[in-house]
This record gives sequence, structure tokens and C-alpha cells, in this order.
Amino acid sequence: MEYALAIQKARDYLAAHEDRILQGLQEFLRIASISTLPAHAQDMERAATYLASRLRELGFPVVKVIPTAGHPLVFADSGPPADNPTALTVMIYGHYDVQPVDPLDQWETPPFEPVIRDDRIYARGASDDKGPVWMHLAALEALRAAVGRLPLRFKLLIEGEEEISSPHLYTYLLEARGELDCDVVVISDTAMYAPGIPSICSGLRGIFAGQIDIIGPAHDLHSGVYGGVVANPIHVLAELLASFHDADGRVNIPGFYDSVRPLSPSEREAWARLPFSETAFCEEIGVPALTGEKGFSPLERMWGRPTLEVNGIWGGFQGEGTKTIIPATAHAKITCRLVPDQDPAKIARLIEEAIASRLPRTVRYRFTVMEGGHPWTTSPEHPYMKAAAAALQECFGAAPVFIRMGGSIPIVSALARQLGKPIVLLGFSLPNERIHAPNEHFHLANMRCGMQALVAYWLRLAAGPVSAE
Amino acid sequence: MEYALAIQKARDYLAAHEDRILQGLQEFLRIASISTLPAHAQDMERAATYLASRLRELGFPVVKVIPTAGHPLVFADSGPPADNPTALTVMIYGHYDVQPVDPLDQWETPPFEPVIRDDRIYARGASDDKGPVWMHLAALEALRAAVGRLPLRFKLLIEGEEEISSPHLYTYLLEARGELDCDVVVISDTAMYAPGIPSICSGLRGIFAGQIDIIGPAHDLHSGVYGGVVANPIHVLAELLASFHDADGRVNIPGFYDSVRPLSPSEREAWARLPFSETAFCEEIGVPALTGEKGFSPLERMWGRPTLEVNGIWGGFQGEGTKTIIPATAHAKITCRLVPDQDPAKIARLIEEAIASRLPRTVRYRFTVMEGGHPWTTSPEHPYMKAAAAALQECFGAAPVFIRMGGSIPIVSALARQLGKPIVLLGFSLPNERIHAPNEHFHLANMRCGMQALVAYWLRLAAGPVSAE
Repeated sequence: MEYALAIQKARDYLAAHEDRILQGLQEFLRIASISTLPAHAQDMERAATYLASRLRELGFPVVKVIPTAGHPLVFADSGPPADNPTALTVMIYGHYDVQPVDPLDQWETPPFEPVIRDDRIYARGASDDKGPVWMHLAALEALRAAVGRLPLRFKLLIEGEEEISSPHLYTYLLEARGELDCDVVVISDTAMYAPGIPSICSGLRGIFAGQIDIIGPAHDLHSGVYGGVVANPIHVLAELLASFHDADGRVNIPGFYDSVRPLSPSEREAWARLPFSETAFCEEIGVPALTGEKGFSPLERMWGRPTLEVNGIWGGFQGEGTKTIIPATAHAKITCRLVPDQDPAKIARLIEEAIASRLPRTVRYRFTVMEGGHPWTTSPEHPYMKAAAAALQECFGAAPVFIRMGGSIPIVSALARQLGKPIVLLGFSLPNERIHAPNEHFHLANMRCGMQALVAYWLRLAAGPVSAE
Repeated sequence: MEYALAIQKARDYLAAHEDRILQGLQEFLRIASISTLPAHAQDMERAATYLASRLRELGFPVVKVIPTAGHPLVFADSGPPADNPTALTVMIYGHYDVQPVDPLDQWETPPFEPVIRDDRIYARGASDDKGPVWMHLAALEALRAAVGRLPLRFKLLIEGEEEISSPHLYTYLLEARGELDCDVVVISDTAMYAPGIPSICSGLRGIFAGQIDIIGPAHDLHSGVYGGVVANPIHVLAELLASFHDADGRVNIPGFYDSVRPLSPSEREAWARLPFSETAFCEEIGVPALTGEKGFSPLERMWGRPTLEVNGIWGGFQGEGTKTIIPATAHAKITCRLVPDQDPAKIARLIEEAIASRLPRTVRYRFTVMEGGHPWTTSPEHPYMKAAAAALQECFGAAPVFIRMGGSIPIVSALARQLGKPIVLLGFSLPNERIHAPNEHFHLANMRCGMQALVAYWLRLAAGPVSAE
């Protein structure tokens, strides 16, 4: 069948069945699958079962609800197309769990009673990630309706613990390695750069997290009696933290930038072309002005350069009024965002060396490494990326952009490292859809264009050949 | 009567009546007069009434339990000696309230069941300040027994709110100004420098307390998404706090030292002669080494030089694990210890100016002035001090030392400023008697010598003439 005709048929199918598709999504959204709250354990089961039954309706011969020590995983495999046993295999990853809903009183309508207003669907999980997961199911249905079969092999891996850092997915990745074989992983759990700008995310920063404890006197001391002779752990910590950046906003840890791969001129040019209003950005987050590393634009600093942030600090008295003490200890939580080819373990070592060399001998210290995650990038030039870009261009009627995210999605680098396959982050949410916050919603216009783009993407991959990197 | 005979009579009297005196003190210590706990309001009344009845037994014609909006004050006035209407008036200040007793399980014997072990009396309040108050009452009784009358006019002002910053005493000082007229105020609520070294405290540091709030984005931001462009309030605060001291340990606030009166060579020499082991001091408080302002000894830094300490710091995430945020705010509590002639209000202004000039324009800030107290010193050369020193020398058999305290006793500078009279801080406690902690105790040997010294002091003042400064 001709590509253009197939696209048109899928488009017509999606339009004709939109009400049913949205009803199915609303039913999915009604399940309060909050992974972090033990009281919702049954809802987690219900959401997984609901997804599984939907996948069976779609004709997947293999559909499993896989128990874990936490919430179940849903896995489905369409098997290879009957007429093409060597067709490419696409793995679609997503998650059915959602964030808690407090503060409840700030929701205009209840979080688990989805409603459609202004062509947006409002509910917890609408944008992150039940809406996008549902798009994938609907796109597969439309694809099958348009061409009579699935022209690629599809595997779906939908987990229930993404919002709590996927503690049991990693075990599964190791155990079920064979089952997960594929040619490309596609994930719709990121956002478009802005309304009207279809986007593919080509990079995520990695992370290193640690804690610094400065240990002073055996117990809190009276700051009147002892003030003037005892090193105050808060002073020591403040000086140490202040030493972590230089006057140009660079991280002042020897060797920190050694493995940083410079941004390519083409990437910098592409990012420079993206609309970005520093004034509007400042207003949105409520700061008088931006700061950061000299010589780089804000997008470059957020997406392509490493950072060291203190995420929390505490020590001594925090109550009302005054308590005149020199505290026994002071503490800071730090995280670094890492870019290729920085290694979390090496960064931990460099930081510890800096701490050890900078602290005075008047205190003791402890440095605890808490977590690490590798940065991830993929080339916009990769054939799977180019095919996705062409599909987006076609269905959104606008040139897609390759963006990065400053955050880390540990599961992406884990999947990349475990499966050794390219990952395409094809996001249809918008940055202001209030994920993790009251009044989360999802724009139906992007859902419609997105479903079409997914069908177009699969048709393009089926027309192949696509050679892996 | 001859001085030597009077002293001997008083000594004999105190020895003969020691059991009764200690029984009375034990009864006083049995009253759980914890000023900060509302559940003990009745105990506060009982303690005040107990003191008042004891003062009436001593023959004071004026004894009042004065209600306040908080706990009552006890005031007594002996009136002038019948044979000497122009005798000096001595005001004795003390307090009958005590600190809470937790952690209760660390007491070897219950805090309100006083026991005598190893010639020490153990109970909450034994050293701070019921024991010393009781010494004064017993010394007056012995004085009267020895010479047949009180040869000076005595006023006693014993409050019940010292441990909670004397909130209602200040009002009373203003209202009862006339009633409080005196020539000298004597307070026994400080410690001796060390066992065997009778001490007079000739100076207290003042205090300035404030809070610094650094205000960044409107709410916590994701440190992955925004890291690299938004000024982190914790970083800004750390840099500000680090800027408050220079490499020589001096407070780096322009003008901070302008009003600091240099220590006199005689005072520095006297302090240099005091026994002080830096090693033992470090071991006691559990630090590897001391720190502080270059060019001054530890005692000089604690007693005679001003400080700026951060007493508490907080911002962002303090829980288990990691939360990847750039916090909206960061906060620090600071106090300065001040020495003559620094003024708390001026210090507040200088600090605020330094903050304003040092903070980047990427954040906002708030600076809150919380409390202030003037430093206080008196000259060891003052006749009231010399008479006290002579009495100590005589009864302890060792040369007394003039020490200072690094802490602040706001009531001392308040009394000094309100009454305009010299204050003699004649302390009989020891530094390690665990005041405010489990197993508080008071050494009976110092109590005995101290009661004799008080009698000797009053006899010396009665022999006068003593000219005020």
C-alpha cells in the first residue's frame, strides 16, 4: 500500500475513533496509580491489568503482567509480522504510575476525575505519562487498521515505578535480557520545546549525588563561651561550598571539566536558533536575573554544560528566635549534572579530593556518595532520529528541533547501556502542562498530531532500510 | 566588734548550722521550678513562697512576692541598720528558676531529689542558681548572728525567669526604680575560673542577633532542568557567609572593629598568667585544634574580642537520600559577641550594609535584627571589686583572679544601665558542674568558703568608706 494512502487511512481512523480513544484514556486516568503511596497498591494492579487487557484487545499474542518486589511491569510482544520475519523490532517504553496529588485543594477538578476543557484533558497522569502511553496504543491500533497488520515487531515495556526511580526495572532488564532484544527504543516521556515546535530530545545530563558532613565539637557549644576559638562547622562548610565555583561561574574542582566533550558547532547553532526570551524565562521562575558559566548561552548551560548544585544545607538552630550555639555539625547535599563523557564515579573522586585538600585541620568530615547516573546523548544524524524528525515534520507541519534536557532520566541511560540500542525520545507533552503539580493536563491537539506522527514513523521504519549506528 | 572576731563567729555559726542550712537548700531544690514548662507554674509559686518565708524568718521587714505576667519576683528589703541610717545598700540579685531536666535517663539520681555525694550536692539548680542564692541567705543569717544585726542595708531581688531571658524583669526595673536604689549589685550566678581559683567576673560580651534570608526563585526548581542558569540561594548564602571572615580569622565587616576598646596590657598579662592547657581544652570539647583571630590568645579571643558566628543554617532538602532541587530560599541565624564599646545597633547596620553590597543582583534578601545586648565590663580596680577580692583571698586562701565571660548575661547590662551602679559578679560555681545538663551539682567546699567570703565582704563594706567609681 502506498505510504500516503496509509497515512490518510490512519488519520481518518483516528478521527473517527477519537471519542472511544479518549474514553479509554479517561478510564485509564481514573485509576489512582500513585506508585509512592502504599495505600494505592491495588490501583497499581488495576492500572497494569487495564493496560494488559487493552494490549490483548489490540491483538498482541504475548501480554504479561510481571510481578516484581514492587509494582508490576506490563510487557507485550506483537511477534514479527507474518510476512516479514526479519522486520525491525521497536521497543516502546513508558510508565503507568503517577505522582501524588497534594495539594489537593489546588486542583480545579479532582485529579482522578478526568475532564476535557479547552481541548485539553485534565487529570493526574494526563501528560506524564498515561496520555503519551495511550497515544502509542491508539497509534498501533490505527496503524493496524490502515495497513491490515503491524508492519514491524513491537514490544512494549510499561512500568509502574518510574516516579520512584524504577527500583525493580533494573533487575528485570538484567533477567529478561533476551525478551527485550530490539533495534530501537522509543520513549514518549519528554516535552516539546514549546507549543508548535515538535521536538526530539537527543541528550540528558547524568548525575552524581553526594553528602558532605562537617564534624566539629563533640556537641553543640555555647557560642558566647566558646565563640572565638572553635571552628564553626557552618563557617567551614560555607567556605568549602563557596570554593566550589569560581568568579566565572565554573565549577572549581580540579579535573572536573577534563572529560567534557565540547558542544559541536552545529548543535550550538541549532540551539541558538531556538526562541528563548531571557526576560520571560526570569519572570516565569521569579528571579531578577540569570547566572551561570561565562561563555555559554542559557540553553547551553542548562543542556550541555555540567553543574554542581547544593540541593540542601543544614546545621545548628533553625527555629524561631535565637539559640546561641556553635553547632557540632553542618551538612550539605550536593548533586552534579554531568555531560558526555563525564563519569559519575570519577567526579565523586575529584570532589572528595577537593574537599580533603581544602578543609582545615580544625574539623573532621565525611563524604558520602549517594547515587550516580551516566549522561546520555545520541546524534541527531542517526537514521532513527532522522526518520522520527521526518514523521514529526509531516504531521505537525513544522520543522522539528533537536533539544536536550538538563535533567537526568536514569532509565534512559540504563536502557541504552543494557540493550546497546539507540533510543529516540519523542515527546508530545508541553513544558507547562503542570506535571507533578495540581491541574496536570495534556493538549489534545498534540495528542492528535502525535498519534499521526507515530504512525508515520512506523511506516517510515517499515519502508526502511534503516541501518543502526 | 573586731573584724577578725566577727569573721570567726560567723565561721563557727556556719559550721554549727551547716546541716540545717543544707536541709533548707535541699527543700528548696526539691521544688521543680522549671520556668519554661507551663506544667510547673505551681512549682514556681511554691519556690517563690518558700524563699519569701525564709527571708521573713531572717527578719526582713519587707518581703514581697510580686506577681508578673509570668512567674513572680521575690523582693526583700532589710531597711537601713538601726544604728546607721546612711549605711551602704547592697542589692543581691539571683534566680530561683531552673532549666528543664531532660534527658531524664542520664541522671544518676532524680533531678528533684537532692543528694549529697563526695561533698557535692546533686540536683537541678544546685549550681545554677538555687545553691548560690541559698548561700546568700545563709551568709546573711551568719552575719546577723556574728555581729547582732545586719550592718548594711540589703535588698534581694530573686526572679523566676532568668532561664527564659527575664521577660518581665525589665518592666519591673522600670516601674520599681525607687525601690531598687542601691550602691552596688552583687550577683552569684557565674563560675570560678577553675577549682581552687576564686574568681570575680569583670566583663561580659554583648550580643547582636539577626537572621539572613536569601530569596531566589518563586519556588523550588528542578536542579536538572534549571541547573546552570539560576542563582542557587544556598550558593549565594555560602559565599556571603564565607566573606564574613578573612584569612586571619578577623570579622570582615567594614567598621566592625572601630569601637573595640583594646585590652589593657595589665589585663592581658593577668589572663596570660591563668592556667590554660590548649590540649586539654581541645580534648574536653572534642575538636582537633583551635582556630580564631590571629594575634590573640584563646582566653583573649573568648573574653575580650568580638566574634561573628553562624548559629544555624538551612535551605532546601534535608531528608534521607537526594532531592534534586535548586531551593527557593536559604537562611542563616547569626550572632555577634560584642566587646566594649561596640554598640549592637551599629553592628546591625554595618552587617546589613555588608550584605547589601556583597549580594549579587540575581537574588533578593531579607535581614532581620532579632536582639541586642550591650557588652559590660567593670574595672578590677574599683573599690567594690577590691573589697570582694580581699574577702575571697581571705576565705579561699588563694589569690582571686579577675576573669571575663565570653557569654552575655543581658540582665547584668540591663541592671548596670538601669541602676547606674557597679555590679560585682562573685561566682562560686565550677565550670564543670553540669549546669543545664544531667547530674548538675555544686561543690560544698566552695559553698562553705563562699559563705564565709560573703560575710567577710559585707563586713569589709560595713567598715567602709567605699567610694563609687
